[in-house]
Amino acid sequence: MSIVTFTTDFGLSDGYAGAMKGVVLALAPDAKLVDVTHGVPPLDVTAGAVALAQAAPFFPQGTIHVAVVDPGVGSARAALVVEAGGSLFVGPDNGVLSLATRRPRVIRRIESASFRREVVSPTFHGRDIFAPTAGRLAAGTAPSEAGPVAQEMVELGARPVHRRGGIVEGSVIHVDAFGNLITSLDAGLIAEEASIEVEGGEGVFHPVFGRTFTDVDPGALVAYVGSGGQVEVARRDGSAAQRTGAQRGSVVRVRGV
Amino acid sequence: MSIVTFTTDFGLSDGYAGAMKGVVLALAPDAKLVDVTHGVPPLDVTAGAVALAQAAPFFPQGTIHVAVVDPGVGSARAALVVEAGGSLFVGPDNGVLSLATRRPRVIRRIESASFRREVVSPTFHGRDIFAPTAGRLAAGTAPSEAGPVAQEMVELGARPVHRRGGIVEGSVIHVDAFGNLITSLDAGLIAEEASIEVEGGEGVFHPVFGRTFTDVDPGALVAYVGSGGQVEVARRDGSAAQRTGAQRGSVVRVRGV
Amino acid sequence: MSIVTFTTDFGLSDGYAGAMKGVVLALAPDAKLVDVTHGVPPLDVTAGAVALAQAAPFFPQGTIHVAVVDPGVGSARAALVVEAGGSLFVGPDNGVLSLATRRPRVIRRIESASFRREVVSPTFHGRDIFAPTAGRLAAGTAPSEAGPVAQEMVELGARPVHRRGGIVEGSVIHVDAFGNLITSLDAGLIAEEASIEVEGGEGVFHPVFGRTFTDVDPGALVAYVGSGGQVEVARRDGSAAQRTGAQRGSVVRVRGV
Repeated sequence: MSIVTFTTDFGLSDGYAGAMKGVVLALAPDAKLVDVTHGVPPLDVTAGAVALAQAAPFFPQGTIHVAVVDPGVGSARAALVVEAGGSLFVGPDNGVLSLATRRPRVIRRIESASFRREVVSPTFHGRDIFAPTAGRLAAGTAPSEAGPVAQEMVELGARPVHRRGGIVEGSVIHVDAFGNLITSLDAGLIAEEASIEVEGGEGVFHPVFGRTFTDVDPGALVAYVGSGGQVEVARRDGSAAQRTGAQRGSVVRVRGV
Repeated sequence: MSIVTFTTDFGLSDGYAGAMKGVVLALAPDAKLVDVTHGVPPLDVTAGAVALAQAAPFFPQGTIHVAVVDPGVGSARAALVVEAGGSLFVGPDNGVLSLATRRPRVIRRIESASFRREVVSPTFHGRDIFAPTAGRLAAGTAPSEAGPVAQEMVELGARPVHRRGGIVEGSVIHVDAFGNLITSLDAGLIAEEASIEVEGGEGVFHPVFGRTFTDVDPGALVAYVGSGGQVEVARRDGSAAQRTGAQRGSVVRVRGV
Repeated sequence: MSIVTFTTDFGLSDGYAGAMKGVVLALAPDAKLVDVTHGVPPLDVTAGAVALAQAAPFFPQGTIHVAVVDPGVGSARAALVVEAGGSLFVGPDNGVLSLATRRPRVIRRIESASFRREVVSPTFHGRDIFAPTAGRLAAGTAPSEAGPVAQEMVELGARPVHRRGGIVEGSVIHVDAFGNLITSLDAGLIAEEASIEVEGGEGVFHPVFGRTFTDVDPGALVAYVGSGGQVEVARRDGSAAQRTGAQRGSVVRVRGV
């Protein structure tokens, strides 16, 4: 019984996510469907890639992950199925799969007619290409039947981390629903003699280092090793994003390393 | 193993949708539960009907679709189970089932005591009538045991489409979460020599015809054949609803047909 | 095949809920996963407890309910598995399990290393302690292996109901997504000769007693026996919370009892 997960920006007021699920079940009635989320902010490919990368590593090998955040639907961008880490990832070639699929990986373009619905709407490849692909894979068809191997795919990346003297400069790569700032800085940078600063729209802030929120007083900012292994900044009993005015791309610096 | 889908306006901060799922599983432990959505705007029967109609056609035959958007709960409105297209639809008789159940169909009122919980709350028929009905059906009870056949049910419909001279006038029937305007106009109206206009709160707008969003520049309005087969109006990288001020019922005209 | 339900405040824009589901399925591939909700307002333990208590009683015996609303994650608060009513409840010891677990119950602290991931993030016990516990239980491990029995756990409670002369004074314990006010007052207080008043931020309001919304005119306030067995106040075709300005803790009085 295959597991098929869904990560989309289809939201919760329409039947679009439901249509995708129906297509998968029509092809693979025994598939176990799991929502990662349909609440990715509309058209925000990076947020979708982050959500998928937060969840996918914890599923059993062989899981089929479908991710559809697709502002370029209907254009020439390719449709992909990627094998990585023993699991399969299905989605548009716009970077949404790039953070969850660690190398080595095999990238294939979905080109076979048996991996799409007979008529493909130019605005809903989720239903007409990606769900049929997931359904075929869940029913046991090999990914090699989807189409030819590709050498590369669109990659997302945070602004590179810079190191000058004793200063390491990275950025916020994601703001989660609690207002926590997930940064591009490696957790190894947290050290007793170091200090951290966040440049947000509300000014420059200096969180203290801690192990978790509850190490600081209510309302205070704290930097710690996040659950994904990177430096995160949070505000106890509040939103670090709101307090600092930081957003994706905001600069975060560690001094004294 | 029966598939049971849920389409409700119960939202995501309460346990109401969970209670319905529990009732179904208590009666049919092997049922496969699938959320279409619990994010229908509160009490918006038309939006629920549209979401169900967007999703239901893609599920395998034999699926049991439960839809509960029910501003008249506790009043005299009937509870229905409808057979259509080889699947079953369960919900209140207020139109929420009307867009997804194409003719021919068999409409039955749910009147049997075995299709409801022993005590029925006048404010929560989702838990106490519709979920038990879905559970019984999923466990193999025939829909004919629910109650007597009815000749008709409440139907929803968009404002009728008018045709005068070379002008066809319809309306917006749904605004989706991306701000796309789904209209009552048949896709066959899109023709090279024709033009389209949308009367929204922000003025009258003239989208160009295209195949999909990416056929126009960022910020431009485009009209195309939507994934449901009707004319849709979208704004590339934005919300057509916000740009035009159009909402459900707003007039949309095609000239030159 | 075990049923595992999820009640969290993880929201819908991140992959956190998905990560928990992956961990459960990696340990118990046959488990049936059911979302109660991931839309509990952030850090609102009481709202999470209410949602769980609304849903859990309707699931079959043997269901494993995981609830994670956890502002104290990483602090000294215990992690619990509670047996009550033939089902199992897993979550932090902060009250989130207290409304759904009726006595008699057996409370255990989760202390066994086999009930957590090898490395436990101080900020994500949902993924690293509660999901592994649910997965182990779903795979058949006895709850007694989780850790030692505890005599008590954190309990939530509404402000006590007071009775003076012919007046009973309680409070709003929950505002649901429709804006209905769920109170701490027992349904038995509704009587023909009694009257009810709500003290909200917008003034003092006097709903009429009814059986359901549709017993009053559009826009009017009505008090009735809610689906959970307590007095509820609603506004027909609108939000009682918005009309009255009432929120959790607001005073509700019945006179003449």
